[in-house]
Amino acid sequence: MDKLIFEPGREFARQLDTQDSLASFRKAFVFPEPGLIYLDGNSLGRLPQRTAQRVQTAVEREWGQGLIRSWNAGWFQAPLRVGDRIARLLGAGPGQIVASDSTSVNLFKLVMAALAMRPGRDRIISDVLNFPSDLYILQGCTDLLGNRHHLHLVPAADGIEVDPQALYDAIDQHTALVTLSHVTFKSGFLYDMAAVTEQAHQVGALVLWDLSHSAGAVPMELDRWGVDLAVGCTYKYLNGGPGAPAFLYVRRDLQEETRCPIWGWFGQRSPFDFDLGYEPAEGIARYLVGTPPILSLLAMESALELVLEAGVERIRQKSVLLTSYLVYLADRVLAPLGFALGSPRDPARRGSHVSIRHADGYRINRALIEEMEVLPDFREPDNIRLGLAPLYTSFADVWEAIDRIRRLVEEERYRRYPAQRLQVT
Amino acid sequence: MDKLIFEPGREFARQLDTQDSLASFRKAFVFPEPGLIYLDGNSLGRLPQRTAQRVQTAVEREWGQGLIRSWNAGWFQAPLRVGDRIARLLGAGPGQIVASDSTSVNLFKLVMAALAMRPGRDRIISDVLNFPSDLYILQGCTDLLGNRHHLHLVPAADGIEVDPQALYDAIDQHTALVTLSHVTFKSGFLYDMAAVTEQAHQVGALVLWDLSHSAGAVPMELDRWGVDLAVGCTYKYLNGGPGAPAFLYVRRDLQEETRCPIWGWFGQRSPFDFDLGYEPAEGIARYLVGTPPILSLLAMESALELVLEAGVERIRQKSVLLTSYLVYLADRVLAPLGFALGSPRDPARRGSHVSIRHADGYRINRALIEEMEVLPDFREPDNIRLGLAPLYTSFADVWEAIDRIRRLVEEERYRRYPAQRLQVT
Repeated sequence: MDKLIFEPGREFARQLDTQDSLASFRKAFVFPEPGLIYLDGNSLGRLPQRTAQRVQTAVEREWGQGLIRSWNAGWFQAPLRVGDRIARLLGAGPGQIVASDSTSVNLFKLVMAALAMRPGRDRIISDVLNFPSDLYILQGCTDLLGNRHHLHLVPAADGIEVDPQALYDAIDQHTALVTLSHVTFKSGFLYDMAAVTEQAHQVGALVLWDLSHSAGAVPMELDRWGVDLAVGCTYKYLNGGPGAPAFLYVRRDLQEETRCPIWGWFGQRSPFDFDLGYEPAEGIARYLVGTPPILSLLAMESALELVLEAGVERIRQKSVLLTSYLVYLADRVLAPLGFALGSPRDPARRGSHVSIRHADGYRINRALIEEMEVLPDFREPDNIRLGLAPLYTSFADVWEAIDRIRRLVEEERYRRYPAQRLQVT
Repeated sequence: MDKLIFEPGREFARQLDTQDSLASFRKAFVFPEPGLIYLDGNSLGRLPQRTAQRVQTAVEREWGQGLIRSWNAGWFQAPLRVGDRIARLLGAGPGQIVASDSTSVNLFKLVMAALAMRPGRDRIISDVLNFPSDLYILQGCTDLLGNRHHLHLVPAADGIEVDPQALYDAIDQHTALVTLSHVTFKSGFLYDMAAVTEQAHQVGALVLWDLSHSAGAVPMELDRWGVDLAVGCTYKYLNGGPGAPAFLYVRRDLQEETRCPIWGWFGQRSPFDFDLGYEPAEGIARYLVGTPPILSLLAMESALELVLEAGVERIRQKSVLLTSYLVYLADRVLAPLGFALGSPRDPARRGSHVSIRHADGYRINRALIEEMEVLPDFREPDNIRLGLAPLYTSFADVWEAIDRIRRLVEEERYRRYPAQRLQVT
């Protein structure tokens, strides 16, 4: 349907913006460079105005003035309180999510917990589109457990999508855990979470979803779909700030039978009794470990408010329109210049970023940053990722970005940049 | 020697302050309540003026304006850069410390790494004075490894000090790891790190020190003393802010033979190649896991500068004088009121906090906070901890605090508070 309604001119983008019910949220973010088109909100979301204020209050009033007293005035409760707020974005009831640690550490906890819940099974299913960081954690867990598990990665023939049937065929009665990114980091492929979860449960396997690229961008119903476990980061569409604490979800009825493999004092039943023996806290709190980084945590909490106010359903509606509009323009303007789509065409199978592929993708990306005031990012081997954050990305941004990419490539201005990717050290 | 030079009057405290070469550092911290005597810097250090500024810059300029570009403009390097700065406080050369995660998560990494390095040994030695949080991590690690290790806790007859000989007797050729707090959290007992490390090494055991209560307060020589492993937090005497990232140390020649049990992408050799197979980074970077909480990390980095400027030797000189003066006054003024010393008398065996014990300790502590503008903290069963942070605690603070405790107890104003400790939830 999307292709039918779009028109190619800049004026049409302005019309879409005037009809955008989320347009007013743009003012809630800081825009220090008005000419910059930021298309990396799927990697680091923009700074909300209120977050700058919130951090100042946390530093000056809570730390500077409240000092140690602030632990009892809200800091201790923050990991669970923030978890419950995140839960509202994910279709989860309270008491099932904590904000804590990094996504990788949380994934470690839950993979270890999951494998302990399925002692007789030796298969772990993931896919080649998953974050390499997630695959590293899985490899580390299997190594730690004596390499008794086999990690099977379902292929993706085109590098864009996984064939659901190939996934389902891989899940068998030896499978302990199916763990996938809800939206894959490179192509933006969106899994049918309900269907995959059901398939896994049919053979008694557990599911663990990484929601890093979908939290705050794609609606979901963790509780209703019976999801077992989930993790995710908060610095992408939740705009929580660089390296903001991640979160983890454990379905309520699994909490008492599972245990965090890292026995930390924030996960202890009564941490201020200072007993020498560890007893896990009741409920989701047992998945906390050490003292949380409060400044980063409170910054993130304040940013969540915007997503809660907008509502994930409305965000998703705009996201589908934004990515569909981008695909429409890319087909029309960029395909003749050697670009191919690196994301699913069907918006129902796509998150909120779109990859466009080009043989000179690496240096085009670099030239966009250096010369065109466009900030996408690049993913090997040839993907330029264009992240569209519905709370602050306008349709005019999309039109202008595509136009700047067109000009750059038509004028071959990227050719002065090295074609080789330099090693990041 | 200390007792000889002290005098009981308030004027003497003023004299000590005029001779204090660190007195000027007090101005570098925020003092929003001039009447408050803060004696909890061993739990949460005060806010440095420059840190409030640094956080604002990190939020508004680096996140708000720099956006994703800031990762390449300093954020990626921060965990190693900050680690090298912490190293200068601990007698460690560069490339051996990273700032990352929480103390508990770091302890988990290093305990697991240590036990993997000593596969034929089944004893872990710690003591009953260690942080319960550290003992929980140890219990979790032994559980994860199938309860093949025995955790032996050396007792402390008086609850204050461990007899070194009892510790040495416990370390034998079955000992994989000796892990202790350099300064114990309750009594402030300070271990002879060099001697304990040597004893452990004589039988081939590894040592892992928790430096949370000594980093920035007690000089040490990790490299020279041949320490194997260490962890510590940064929000006590390093003033890094609530829940600021912790650190870990792995001696250079052990790095290549050890592996972090959590295989994270920040510890991967080339994280931006996005290879699907994990290869650990060279050196200490392999102990990084996920994306670090940048706001908390940069706040902490800025706070470190003050400790580096002052120098740990000078800090220690003042610390010994402060705690000795406090013990002198407590003996003279508080002992007649039912107080006993809960810390070592010998300053060479004492960190920078002093515990005073009283049968009504819990409610005296509470009344001090509520009525006397004194902020110590309480540790079961009867310890009031008085933390003396040499960068901003004056001798006049010590005199005034002891005088306020005296008045409170003489007037029995604490009796209106419940004698029972309430459960923290």
